Amino acid sequence: MVQLGLVGLGKMGFNMRERLRRAGHEVIGYDRNQEVSDSESLADLVSRLAAPRIVWIMVPAGAPTQATVEELNDLLAEGDLIIEGGNSRFTDDQKHAALLEKNGIGYLDCGVSGGVWGLENGYGLMVGGDQAFVERAMPIFDSLRPEGPREEGFAHAGKVGAGHFAKMVHNGIEYGLMQAYAEGFELLDASTVVEDAPAVIKAWQRGTVVRSWLLDLLVRALDSDPELDDLRGYVEDSGEGRWTVEEAINHAVPAPVISAALFARFASRQEDSPAMRAVAALRNQFGGHAVQQVK
Amino acid sequence: MVQLGLVGLGKMGFNMRERLRRAGHEVIGYDRNQEVSDSESLADLVSRLAAPRIVWIMVPAGAPTQATVEELNDLLAEGDLIIEGGNSRFTDDQKHAALLEKNGIGYLDCGVSGGVWGLENGYGLMVGGDQAFVERAMPIFDSLRPEGPREEGFAHAGKVGAGHFAKMVHNGIEYGLMQAYAEGFELLDASTVVEDAPAVIKAWQRGTVVRSWLLDLLVRALDSDPELDDLRGYVEDSGEGRWTVEEAINHAVPAPVISAALFARFASRQEDSPAMRAVAALRNQFGGHAVQQVK
Amino acid sequence: MVQLGLVGLGKMGFNMRERLRRAGHEVIGYDRNQEVSDSESLADLVSRLAAPRIVWIMVPAGAPTQATVEELNDLLAEGDLIIEGGNSRFTDDQKHAALLEKNGIGYLDCGVSGGVWGLENGYGLMVGGDQAFVERAMPIFDSLRPEGPREEGFAHAGKVGAGHFAKMVHNGIEYGLMQAYAEGFELLDASTVVEDAPAVIKAWQRGTVVRSWLLDLLVRALDSDPELDDLRGYVEDSGEGRWTVEEAINHAVPAPVISAALFARFASRQEDSPAMRAVAALRNQFGGHAVQQVK
Amino acid sequence: MVQLGLVGLGKMGFNMRERLRRAGHEVIGYDRNQEVSDSESLADLVSRLAAPRIVWIMVPAGAPTQATVEELNDLLAEGDLIIEGGNSRFTDDQKHAALLEKNGIGYLDCGVSGGVWGLENGYGLMVGGDQAFVERAMPIFDSLRPEGPREEGFAHAGKVGAGHFAKMVHNGIEYGLMQAYAEGFELLDASTVVEDAPAVIKAWQRGTVVRSWLLDLLVRALDSDPELDDLRGYVEDSGEGRWTVEEAINHAVPAPVISAALFARFASRQEDSPAMRAVAALRNQFGGHAVQQVK
Repeated sequence: MVQLGLVGLGKMGFNMRERLRRAGHEVIGYDRNQEVSDSESLADLVSRLAAPRIVWIMVPAGAPTQATVEELNDLLAEGDLIIEGGNSRFTDDQKHAALLEKNGIGYLDCGVSGGVWGLENGYGLMVGGDQAFVERAMPIFDSLRPEGPREEGFAHAGKVGAGHFAKMVHNGIEYGLMQAYAEGFELLDASTVVEDAPAVIKAWQRGTVVRSWLLDLLVRALDSDPELDDLRGYVEDSGEGRWTVEEAINHAVPAPVISAALFARFASRQEDSPAMRAVAALRNQFGGHAVQQVK
Repeated sequence: MVQLGLVGLGKMGFNMRERLRRAGHEVIGYDRNQEVSDSESLADLVSRLAAPRIVWIMVPAGAPTQATVEELNDLLAEGDLIIEGGNSRFTDDQKHAALLEKNGIGYLDCGVSGGVWGLENGYGLMVGGDQAFVERAMPIFDSLRPEGPREEGFAHAGKVGAGHFAKMVHNGIEYGLMQAYAEGFELLDASTVVEDAPAVIKAWQRGTVVRSWLLDLLVRALDSDPELDDLRGYVEDSGEGRWTVEEAINHAVPAPVISAALFARFASRQEDSPAMRAVAALRNQFGGHAVQQVK
Repeated sequence: MVQLGLVGLGKMGFNMRERLRRAGHEVIGYDRNQEVSDSESLADLVSRLAAPRIVWIMVPAGAPTQATVEELNDLLAEGDLIIEGGNSRFTDDQKHAALLEKNGIGYLDCGVSGGVWGLENGYGLMVGGDQAFVERAMPIFDSLRPEGPREEGFAHAGKVGAGHFAKMVHNGIEYGLMQAYAEGFELLDASTVVEDAPAVIKAWQRGTVVRSWLLDLLVRALDSDPELDDLRGYVEDSGEGRWTVEEAINHAVPAPVISAALFARFASRQEDSPAMRAVAALRNQFGGHAVQQVK
Repeated sequence: MVQLGLVGLGKMGFNMRERLRRAGHEVIGYDRNQEVSDSESLADLVSRLAAPRIVWIMVPAGAPTQATVEELNDLLAEGDLIIEGGNSRFTDDQKHAALLEKNGIGYLDCGVSGGVWGLENGYGLMVGGDQAFVERAMPIFDSLRPEGPREEGFAHAGKVGAGHFAKMVHNGIEYGLMQAYAEGFELLDASTVVEDAPAVIKAWQRGTVVRSWLLDLLVRALDSDPELDDLRGYVEDSGEGRWTVEEAINHAVPAPVISAALFARFASRQEDSPAMRAVAALRNQFGGHAVQQVK
């Protein structure tokens, strides 16, 4: 069993602390929200860890993660290890590792998948960084990942950044998978010959080629709302789909499906599409086609 | 100069009659709307034409065209010629030609492009059918098509159906072109560095690679409504974009751009997307992500 | 236990006979290939079944299925039941049912998913037709479908055609899912920061949002060929992806992901793309950009 | 008439010098290739210009442009003006302008469209920067742009960067337009009912909705090679299509058509698609579908 500092006790971090404690590890958490925090400050957290320390960061990507890394860089000492488990862009990891290395502080980036189900099911983990650090943190990884063979829920993907690159691609794929099911749902729903679309989707759970965990979740959603008409078709995106398309472009990899899924999200958030106003205007110009005027 | 019966005097047929008359042809029109019609009925129209007759059909595709062909099949005689100039699917032409051939009535299909501008500019024409019929109708084609070399505004595309196939592809391309400009417009409009998107688009009219007649029309639209916010981003489709994608599928031709343009129109007409409700439901299921509830 | 005639003992039918026999049913098979057939002809097969008979058709979609239905229409009698389990287009089912109904022969269409794994895992089933026929055939469906709750591997989707419509959508989704994983694989493979793409994909099997049966199959494939370089990126399509896009168009349902997956398959089979020759020609025309000449 | 220094005398710069000289301006060019250069070095060029100087940069985007700006920053003096006319990313302009401003050197970015045809037709121009600089350079812009109203071939798009942003979007649109024509060409070519695809495309030049300069160029290409089979379907991309998609992502603008056109280029350059190998492997795994082995 190991001792771990855990920074960030939100939806993900809170559950991870619980899962690690159930496995017998000593987890000291820190969160700005003192109601869930085990320590008063980052400094307090660090002071309560025995060297060489391991600190897992689980705060929002971007500025919050950056600030946490920088503050820990001042608080930690040579031989300590930071594991960055948020949804950072992989290029940030390379900057973090370079910064910390000057003080002899190790760095691993870890993509974590599993959402709110991870507490019970375990989390899929993708890690980037040096093999020695990976080995040192393995007791933690082994407790966070699902039951079963290690290699089916954990990968040492490559050097620093590889964990978040792998997680980014994971999320890009996720966008594509969700959109594929969604298009199928809409078509079943539009059909007049199929009379029970939710029953069809439920029946795909066993034996079919399209069975998956996401399909099981779609069935759950349809069980409580068979037409999905309690919610709006408005979908946020959290960055990783965008980065996946950008990296596809950087590597000249065609990504028609993942980009289509991303653009469908963008479109879902538009009250009215400027592009489609342009198309409507053009049709009106050349063909005298009726347009819908704004009232 | 030739004599021509013209069935259908709507937005397109009305202008075509005028253009043909200006060229000196004798055009006798028929339309259900007696206010614009020159004859009381199809039978009346046919009775006023000297054999061998030429009758141009310019009514909506589908059932109206089908009914007109069938009625003319009874009224016309061996040696007469029908030119079907509407937006029929090319497979309909093959049925029409086979039906009429039994009575010795000739058939040409003619795709007509140009919209409301054709009266002044002339109409781009794509024709399918036998060479002998094409030659017989050439005085009409020559008066309808734009000034300039015949081959730049007229093509004998192939056998029966080829004219409408070519027009179908023309319209499929048109969908893609419009969507390309539309995406560019939206991006210019979204940019904060570009301060005058309409001026940029106006400046593309001369010298640039993207100059085109559609671009000129977009400039016209922007001249009167620089943000295009007097109209809604709601766009109908008239069948030919759908057929283009279906024929692309039939011939295993990848058509990512034309299909994307078609789907953007479908999406523009949805108040709320069932597919995106499914994506929202899935995100909520696995990540506890917030969804927008229907009020 | 019931008695069943089974026409078509290919890759799917052969295994289904075996699975049904293991469950204790009496299955008499017919196939043109006498080495696997239990009967000499369709007539022989029918003569060996006790009325009221149930005959399951499992031959290729299109002409072979059509011919089999017509021949059985002559051989069977009032009160008999045909189950069409191949990959027919749902519109064919409606024709088959109408034909058979004149002779009082019942008809169900059944989409069957599961591939070569169905023998052991069971087959996901989607059925269209009258409830009374569905109930009569339920012992067969129950033996073919996977273990577990019936509704998780079987659906009565609606009236005649609904089974094949549901299977068509299932396959359309399948195209999208496969392409999403494929794009992700290519991007991982292209990355220089990720050093072990197969390990990453293997690690997605447990705990992650993207886990699925298809992912498990991708891991199997990568286990034996980590770069997938023993095979070519040449992918056939079997009709149902095409029909899904066509039905999406018929229902004005945007299907950007499924169509992108379909078009990627088309493109994969082209030695050289005529469209891209046109783009290369255009770039050369306006910019003097170098083109690759055919040697 | 004005005096201008012009750095970079490649395909574009060489013709621009000629067009400006024909208009009566004094142009002193510099190029590393002394055969076309009017000066021996950048320093020599600058020494031959009377203050306040105007220097137009027309070298490849990226490092060469960056180096030229930096060298000119040392050579030029307060009150001079640099116009950067290459295909730079708009974000580079903002860096260049900030650097030069410290020395009181002005900066305009100018997107230039027109390719090898610009010498005769004039160049479409999109400019970013301060109005005072734009006015100072207007004699040059007026000579480079096409005949006709200034606003149809020239735009002051906004602040620094706006010219290249506009040019970037122009090129993104260009990708979409080209791909739309290309898909239509391939479908016409694949059709059996259309017997003369080049004649159809030629006939679109007058009167049709799809007429454009790019269409005229496609006709030119088909005139000399009716099947376009002298060249390969291999298409490079020059950066601006990529940036357009990246900016679309940054602004959450759906860009399905422009991205599809970009991905089609990526795919055109692949001998074999890793993604499609993954799809082939999956089909083989679940259905025992035949795959094409690498020989």
